[in-house]
Amino acid sequence: VTPRADAEALDSADPLAGLRRRFCLPDGVIYLDGNSLGALPDGVEARVAAAIRTEWGSDLIAAWDDDGWWDLPVAVGDRIGALLGAAPGQVVACDSTSVNLYKLLRVAEALRPGRARFVTQHGNFPTDAYLAQHVAGKCLDVVAADDLPGALDTDVAALVLTHVDYRTGAMHDLAALTAAAHHAGAVVLWDLSHSVGAVPLALDAAGADLAVGCSYKYLNGGPGAPAWCYVARRHHDTLAAPLPGWVGHADPFAMEPAYRPAPGVRRLLTGTPGILALRALDTALDAFAGVSLTDLRAKSLALTDLFLRLVDERVGLASPTPHRAADRGSQVSLCHPRAPEVMAALVRRSVIGDVRPPDVLRFGFAPLYVRYVDVWDAVDALAGVVRDVD
Amino acid sequence: VTPRADAEALDSADPLAGLRRRFCLPDGVIYLDGNSLGALPDGVEARVAAAIRTEWGSDLIAAWDDDGWWDLPVAVGDRIGALLGAAPGQVVACDSTSVNLYKLLRVAEALRPGRARFVTQHGNFPTDAYLAQHVAGKCLDVVAADDLPGALDTDVAALVLTHVDYRTGAMHDLAALTAAAHHAGAVVLWDLSHSVGAVPLALDAAGADLAVGCSYKYLNGGPGAPAWCYVARRHHDTLAAPLPGWVGHADPFAMEPAYRPAPGVRRLLTGTPGILALRALDTALDAFAGVSLTDLRAKSLALTDLFLRLVDERVGLASPTPHRAADRGSQVSLCHPRAPEVMAALVRRSVIGDVRPPDVLRFGFAPLYVRYVDVWDAVDALAGVVRDVD
Repeated sequence: VTPRADAEALDSADPLAGLRRRFCLPDGVIYLDGNSLGALPDGVEARVAAAIRTEWGSDLIAAWDDDGWWDLPVAVGDRIGALLGAAPGQVVACDSTSVNLYKLLRVAEALRPGRARFVTQHGNFPTDAYLAQHVAGKCLDVVAADDLPGALDTDVAALVLTHVDYRTGAMHDLAALTAAAHHAGAVVLWDLSHSVGAVPLALDAAGADLAVGCSYKYLNGGPGAPAWCYVARRHHDTLAAPLPGWVGHADPFAMEPAYRPAPGVRRLLTGTPGILALRALDTALDAFAGVSLTDLRAKSLALTDLFLRLVDERVGLASPTPHRAADRGSQVSLCHPRAPEVMAALVRRSVIGDVRPPDVLRFGFAPLYVRYVDVWDAVDALAGVVRDVD
Repeated sequence: VTPRADAEALDSADPLAGLRRRFCLPDGVIYLDGNSLGALPDGVEARVAAAIRTEWGSDLIAAWDDDGWWDLPVAVGDRIGALLGAAPGQVVACDSTSVNLYKLLRVAEALRPGRARFVTQHGNFPTDAYLAQHVAGKCLDVVAADDLPGALDTDVAALVLTHVDYRTGAMHDLAALTAAAHHAGAVVLWDLSHSVGAVPLALDAAGADLAVGCSYKYLNGGPGAPAWCYVARRHHDTLAAPLPGWVGHADPFAMEPAYRPAPGVRRLLTGTPGILALRALDTALDAFAGVSLTDLRAKSLALTDLFLRLVDERVGLASPTPHRAADRGSQVSLCHPRAPEVMAALVRRSVIGDVRPPDVLRFGFAPLYVRYVDVWDAVDALAGVVRDVD
């Protein structure tokens, strides 16, 4: 079996190893749940405290202009856009992923007014499924992943998909499915919550239409961090304002009686932006400074490869996660009939993952801060726990 | 004319004077814009820093249960409810006021399915107007304030009003208009953004139906703080889930494919709650500990009375704010044809208010931290500025 020394050697040779120092991680904890809540980046506490003390406390109302509060949704959006392969001016950071899903479902509907149907897949993340159902009603087709291309007929307005499956870690081919949908005349709304920050994305290059995602997983923006929406520039001229609030108005402080949408993605803004959370997220994104997403993806795959190999060698649990690298994101799931019990025992050994019903153990490998020895030690603990439970 | 010594005497005799020490206010600044962004309460910086460092940084994913994150929207909602005259279980803190307006407009629609029309008034806050227009379309009647009772016929589903006018400070009789709407079979959706924390409210006693509001004005929750929604308990059984996201599901972690609404107001939750902002707001509400809203209202009216009197004595600008105490909130507006210029000069003298088009100078008197001498000094500065400008 692979010895721990191999993992140590991989860490020694890892050009990204130093990035872990950009995070505050508790001693002795192996944190493999960054796919659910990213770890705390260094600098966030101080930056948010300063925003509270100086911007809010001293600058008060003037901070909206003087400290750049008003433009934060767009400024932070552009920084996220850089991780999405999106040129500036196509992303805003705001609201929750769920609220943004609602908005872009309505945008999708408005982009294809002559078409009634939405298509999604079985097992999509619940909030995506609920909101697609809410917007499309009886016009929602829920099909198996393999049947998606065949479901794209000329009555389909939009394909609504999560790029990386929250339960299995399986990853769609974003460019290929986007092209297939376009071939059928539909647009695609991608949920990139489990991709952004761990998987290189090239939305502009793929000709993507619409995307949403959260910022508290691999982007490490903090619990319930502001989410984001992307709309490709070619759709801006006809872009619907799906939740027309004052912040998305062309001239908010004119206080006009009727809504006039702001240009471009700003019209996706609705209410007053949450500044403290945007400051936290803005600072969190500094952890990506100078990082190549290609290098990050290579490390992510090396971590998950090592995990899958060690599990095969030492534990022998089945995994619904694709073994082919191109087909998975940055997490690995394992099946165990007593998954909650296994995870509770792992947590007692300071190995933190989570469970999803009915029988899935999830382990996320955030490549900015997870080490190869963490992988080895986690599987070592898992082997012991599974022996004890069985 | 009223001498400054009178204002000093009022401060000396003020039983609420000590509450100002619960805030961090910059030296030498007279802050009369708490109706737009409330001042920073003491303790918020430390509490948010601790939440970042300890809850997020150390407890990581376990904080959702161990640190009460999951219940914060309801816990904070109940604390706001206490300021609304609402029994527990009827308020959640979440999203922005605008998003919550959308949700409760849909709830109102669902509560009165046989009725097509919505009624609101000219000059409502823009976001309220835009969202009412968005939801009701051509079925929105926009009438003058005085014509509201007459507009309530049997086709009206909901009356949608802001309690205290953002521009003039005029305050509606919430109980009387609620009763009038009920008499016509309609429900009322109140926006209490410019009331809560400055005006005693008795939503349950008034038989109110629905209300929303922001938390960054007199509640001092910080820039873009989570907003809130109130739904009277008698409507809970038939309550629509207007933006059905995973956090409003009856069993979120069951990850069920179909939406089942959580009981009561929890179904108004949509996406993952913004924890850092909720922590800030939760701590900010400590500034109300032990404070009688009746006493707070008395001070608010005394402050605005003094301001109106001093302006009459020394400046002579017209005010659209009702002089009768029961008819106004906690702000006073003055008209000047060169309002932006006047306000800029005031700000240079460290007197902070704001302007609203076309000609309105706004001054907010947050009774938790504004002193009588602040009122005197502000009018003194205003008198000088207006002389210089004219």
